[in-house]
Amino acid sequence: MPTVPLLSDADAHPVASAVFEDIRRTRQVADVNNFWKALANSPPLLQHVWERAKEVMQPGALDALTKELIYIAVSTANSCEYCIHSHTAAARAKGMTSEQYAELQAVIALASTTNALATSMQVPVDQSFNVIS
Amino acid sequence: MPTVPLLSDADAHPVASAVFEDIRRTRQVADVNNFWKALANSPPLLQHVWERAKEVMQPGALDALTKELIYIAVSTANSCEYCIHSHTAAARAKGMTSEQYAELQAVIALASTTNALATSMQVPVDQSFNVIS
Amino acid sequence: MPTVPLLSDADAHPVASAVFEDIRRTRQVADVNNFWKALANSPPLLQHVWERAKEVMQPGALDALTKELIYIAVSTANSCEYCIHSHTAAARAKGMTSEQYAELQAVIALASTTNALATSMQVPVDQSFNVIS
Amino acid sequence: MPTVPLLSDADAHPVASAVFEDIRRTRQVADVNNFWKALANSPPLLQHVWERAKEVMQPGALDALTKELIYIAVSTANSCEYCIHSHTAAARAKGMTSEQYAELQAVIALASTTNALATSMQVPVDQSFNVIS
Amino acid sequence: MPTVPLLSDADAHPVASAVFEDIRRTRQVADVNNFWKALANSPPLLQHVWERAKEVMQPGALDALTKELIYIAVSTANSCEYCIHSHTAAARAKGMTSEQYAELQAVIALASTTNALATSMQVPVDQSFNVIS
Amino acid sequence: MPTVPLLSDADAHPVASAVFEDIRRTRQVADVNNFWKALANSPPLLQHVWERAKEVMQPGALDALTKELIYIAVSTANSCEYCIHSHTAAARAKGMTSEQYAELQAVIALASTTNALATSMQVPVDQSFNVIS
Repeated sequence: MPTVPLLSDADAHPVASAVFEDIRRTRQVADVNNFWKALANSPPLLQHVWERAKEVMQPGALDALTKELIYIAVSTANSCEYCIHSHTAAARAKGMTSEQYAELQAVIALASTTNALATSMQVPVDQSFNVIS
Repeated sequence: MPTVPLLSDADAHPVASAVFEDIRRTRQVADVNNFWKALANSPPLLQHVWERAKEVMQPGALDALTKELIYIAVSTANSCEYCIHSHTAAARAKGMTSEQYAELQAVIALASTTNALATSMQVPVDQSFNVIS
Repeated sequence: MPTVPLLSDADAHPVASAVFEDIRRTRQVADVNNFWKALANSPPLLQHVWERAKEVMQPGALDALTKELIYIAVSTANSCEYCIHSHTAAARAKGMTSEQYAELQAVIALASTTNALATSMQVPVDQSFNVIS
Repeated sequence: MPTVPLLSDADAHPVASAVFEDIRRTRQVADVNNFWKALANSPPLLQHVWERAKEVMQPGALDALTKELIYIAVSTANSCEYCIHSHTAAARAKGMTSEQYAELQAVIALASTTNALATSMQVPVDQSFNVIS
Repeated sequence: MPTVPLLSDADAHPVASAVFEDIRRTRQVADVNNFWKALANSPPLLQHVWERAKEVMQPGALDALTKELIYIAVSTANSCEYCIHSHTAAARAKGMTSEQYAELQAVIALASTTNALATSMQVPVDQSFNVIS
Repeated sequence: MPTVPLLSDADAHPVASAVFEDIRRTRQVADVNNFWKALANSPPLLQHVWERAKEVMQPGALDALTKELIYIAVSTANSCEYCIHSHTAAARAKGMTSEQYAELQAVIALASTTNALATSMQVPVDQSFNVIS
């Protein structure tokens, strides 16, 4: 259960409703996801997050699928159930194959292990990693 | 300061020394990084992690640079200073451009924000994310 | 499902039952929440946590609502579903308005973003932040 | 050491330099902090984060000091060394007393404890926390 | 709901099926847990994790129950619902008493509190903790 | 650098000074660690944490060394540099061998990996883990 009501067009502030409309048009979907319906309780926050997501997730120096894989990685490390589901679905929609998903999981698993080991031993950073001359 | 001594070939168990040699040969480097020198205090763990890293990080369904970006994302979410440095250096060595790095950071930043929002409102997962028919 | 049975007065140790009674009296509620019923499996731990909560959450240099907002912030960053729900409910009971809740979320979202960015770039701490002369 | 060079006006892109100027003017400071100098490696990200920080952290339904306390709480739970220092300094600059700081720490400490306990026992959320009728 | 189908012997790759068989034989159980059925979507990852779990969790310098307690502690700090449940059940199966469980929780709770306090105050590490002469 | 001054007997409140004395006597040490000197800025918090640590960490259903191993595990997952160092030193002082430390690290590493995998696939909890009949 959410801590706020999930708002639909009927209940939402006009600012939120306009964002809903932009999401449906941009993504070519019949309805917006629960995340946006929950965020609609704060129209300015909804507007900010949607504008930001639209800008950041578009293809650029990194392609759209790579960005989704990074999103899944962060969401997993942060234990965000909703985000893991929404971005795994998004990655599939953008063409993620089973092989790519399996390799993503293998990298997340390895990173989680070496993160724990480097942290538990407090390994000092090598000078060779220094990018600043 | 580390919680264990950083071992060199002179101090390390022959099993660890053989792993060091394999790392130097595989990566074409003069010396192994501190992470491996610290892990050498447990030769079986060193051997396991190195074998796993060699296998997981090679190009496959995902290319080597994409894997490094995912590694940085996980390491950032887990606040692992050493791993952030070592894998940012590795990503640069594998050709990460400034533009790619900036976009990686933008995705990590956005994911961190929406993770926090979805978690704080405990947004229920949409049925449409369900992959199981 | 919990990893321990949720105990009621009928099942609980007299020490736990006395804590239940104090919670009901202090908070003027008919029944204690599931958290306390679960903790009752270890009466000394129940007693300790309840005494601590009573002392820490009372108004002092910070008012009771501000303390609840801080509690929600920590619980969100730690992904504690139960605590997010219980302390969001508590904050509402102490008068948190929709506007305050929206601003709380905006600050949590911003902090999560800048935490990730400062960590990913390992920004060195400014000397000007030093409180020790 | 940072993963990127810390840029000053002399090295920064004009867009970044304009943000630096706005930060100095808005905060009435002689120089910007390292966080902004690091972010300047991606002028659009710098601009976005600064605009967002300016908007979110201004007094509203929550006062400026309360927002800093929430920021410290999130940064602590996320182990962000830089952010803990910068926002503890900011909170002091906005009038945080020693008594308030001690109570903030006590709430963070208590929340961390009960987060761990509720999570370890996987306590089911009480129906009474439900805000949706 | 999972992000992948849970595979049984009927659906799984022969490599995965062989791992299932080894799990059933080693643990003397009629069926494998959902974790393995989900991992079976990537047979090499399933094989790797199972081999590693078999090796790491066997009694050695630390007994099998102590290893489960450590596992619960990590899983709690990482908010992994599945792992908390599976390893609390495993610890009980290996003889964890109610008294031991209560003390485990008390240590996890205390560590969570002091972790937060040491981090919030950024306490400098004592030289006396240095293991390297 | 810490966010608060590290207090010695000369600077500390009498309540804090009495706690310092109890720590030195109980642990048979010449001086208290930095954690306590930092906490002394809030004498009631110092007193509370010390009393709690004394009670929780004493041998009971779990022996003192096992408790330290659990403490290291939690501190690692929470990325608490200070706590990792202080409790690794404490574990060594209580007799932790190199073999035990290596196995502790192997369990933490494995748990971190399976936590990430179970979370990334959102594996549903098996009914067989249910402790409540």
